[in-house]
Amino acid sequence: MKPFKGERIFTPGPVELPDSIREVLGRQIIHHRTPEFTQSFLETRDLFKKLVGCPEENFVFFASSGTGAMEAAVLNFFEEGDRVIAVVGGKFGERWAQLGKRWGLKVIELSVEWGKSVDPEEVEDLLKENPDCKGVLVQMSESSTGALHDVKTLGEITDEKEALLVVDAITALGVYNMKPCEWGIDVLVGGSQKAFMLPPGLSMLWFSEKAKRKLTGRAYYFNVEEELKKQAEGQTAFTPAITLILALKESLNMLLSEGMDNVEKRYRAMSEGTRKAVETLGMRVFPENPTISLTAVFPRDLDADSLRKEMLRMGVRVAGGQGKLKGKIFRISHMGMDLLDMPVVLSALELALKRLGKYIKLGNAVGAYLEALDG
Amino acid sequence: MKPFKGERIFTPGPVELPDSIREVLGRQIIHHRTPEFTQSFLETRDLFKKLVGCPEENFVFFASSGTGAMEAAVLNFFEEGDRVIAVVGGKFGERWAQLGKRWGLKVIELSVEWGKSVDPEEVEDLLKENPDCKGVLVQMSESSTGALHDVKTLGEITDEKEALLVVDAITALGVYNMKPCEWGIDVLVGGSQKAFMLPPGLSMLWFSEKAKRKLTGRAYYFNVEEELKKQAEGQTAFTPAITLILALKESLNMLLSEGMDNVEKRYRAMSEGTRKAVETLGMRVFPENPTISLTAVFPRDLDADSLRKEMLRMGVRVAGGQGKLKGKIFRISHMGMDLLDMPVVLSALELALKRLGKYIKLGNAVGAYLEALDG
Repeated sequence: MKPFKGERIFTPGPVELPDSIREVLGRQIIHHRTPEFTQSFLETRDLFKKLVGCPEENFVFFASSGTGAMEAAVLNFFEEGDRVIAVVGGKFGERWAQLGKRWGLKVIELSVEWGKSVDPEEVEDLLKENPDCKGVLVQMSESSTGALHDVKTLGEITDEKEALLVVDAITALGVYNMKPCEWGIDVLVGGSQKAFMLPPGLSMLWFSEKAKRKLTGRAYYFNVEEELKKQAEGQTAFTPAITLILALKESLNMLLSEGMDNVEKRYRAMSEGTRKAVETLGMRVFPENPTISLTAVFPRDLDADSLRKEMLRMGVRVAGGQGKLKGKIFRISHMGMDLLDMPVVLSALELALKRLGKYIKLGNAVGAYLEALDG
Repeated sequence: MKPFKGERIFTPGPVELPDSIREVLGRQIIHHRTPEFTQSFLETRDLFKKLVGCPEENFVFFASSGTGAMEAAVLNFFEEGDRVIAVVGGKFGERWAQLGKRWGLKVIELSVEWGKSVDPEEVEDLLKENPDCKGVLVQMSESSTGALHDVKTLGEITDEKEALLVVDAITALGVYNMKPCEWGIDVLVGGSQKAFMLPPGLSMLWFSEKAKRKLTGRAYYFNVEEELKKQAEGQTAFTPAITLILALKESLNMLLSEGMDNVEKRYRAMSEGTRKAVETLGMRVFPENPTISLTAVFPRDLDADSLRKEMLRMGVRVAGGQGKLKGKIFRISHMGMDLLDMPVVLSALELALKRLGKYIKLGNAVGAYLEALDG
């Protein structure tokens, strides 16, 4: 039974594009050095400002994928030789450490077992041992393991110190009702192809007043100072990803009219329901403290990749494990999904299990999910 | 008489998107870590290889606008302290000089009067005076002035020397039938929103075997070595601009089925016809040796921006001058245009002139264009 509709993706980025966004993407291009673009861009910026909920307009967009904005964070807010702590508990934590080293920072790697969340006390201790530390680099949602790091508590720790709290929120922004300036975050990175439900190619970099005072001007393509000057007036230093900026406006309108509290509730409901569902199947959620943007599942004695392949035969794509978790876990994204999208992926999971010879009562996992929604 | 169809853009990037490309852009997203994407990407790479016509597959794509790939050129092929010559005869030449300085190169700026093309002998002399020179950075088509630099002759000059010839071909690739390895080009930069008729957000970096031996590994997001390894197998180091890669395949198919010789002929016909047309109107083409991708027009005693505004009232957008040429020239792009698109912009120009009180016989400029086509 082949799916006639083509593949459905439940991967943690890119995520399915809503029709209204596809409509914007397919439009004829407009020129960016025009009042028309400037107005749309300023409206987009206004909506983004509402999303992050801070009085200052300290943020820029880049034509790049998320890693570009991570590089921008390292280049613009740190000097060569600066000591920083990188929380390394997954593939994206490793990326912070690599980026820091590439650009001449002295990186203290704080290793966290994959699937665990960083203990804020360990960060606090390290900061005490290294009073010259200029930054803490961490993911909010480490999408390779599905773990949530407690950036709010980290923000309390770095708040009174010199160190900047730099958060890769690529799979958290647009999911959680993040309030970076209330939480004490200094630099925050986002990406278009996650909860913003756009194609990849647009990244976001928000920063605090404390971070702003540290701007180094080290970058060129990713120069925050230059971009901020231009973008505050609805323009960009270099040619922007015009189409994605226009589509981001649609996406932000969708998120804000649902309301970020409701958006977060929706994700919480999907992730808790999914946890109940996979537990019903004898599996467990891999991280101790999971993010709500995706659910990383450890199928215990089963091979995660065989399961994925079975699901793919039904046209349902979930993500596998990365790095040392390859074959050990699979990951179901909730980003860009509605409550009743999860029964699709859970149904595919149930069928896949049965087809792999594991006895289960079909409908139980979906039932558990629906029970959780209604609970 | 307001245009009911909305604005028509004759700007040197972004350029109008063909319908078949808009159709690809509006499709549902596919995941990039899939055999489906890999296959499409490899096909795209194959077509790009045909476009540049070199035996090696020395090229990578980045999720960035063109400036990103210019930065990649500077970071990946030069070390801090390297001496380079930057040909500065317009806004984009200035960008080479700025990028070089930002990343620690010793930049010798070879100033060329805006609108003139660089004299290859001057480059040769400078190279003799500076035998330690590691590179010559130049535009093929300096889109701020409309001038064409003779990169073929420059290629003959650098061929036997250590210096790499680094060419920003952002408004030349896909216009001229460029043969970088025959011409002795070492690094070539392209961008999606020009003759490839895509939205901005995808850049291209091609390089020679001579350049390949110099790879420094200095970059992270723009790391050529890492990308080449991945891209040769149809993948990317970081999330690619999925949509634009898929649309580039369509664009390359369009260019290659027309045949790059014919494409170049088409552009040559449009630019020569446009020159005849504006001369009929008592104006002149601004550069001495113009590129065929756009025509920069100097309207002599008339204010270029008033003309532009009149044309805009009719829904036709041409570009103004940049930097010191603001208000002095206007620029008509031929990129992505068909032979019979030019009468649209020329008609608007004729009407604009008349409305600004200049007596002209309407139809003369269009007539001169059509005569040139048929000549």
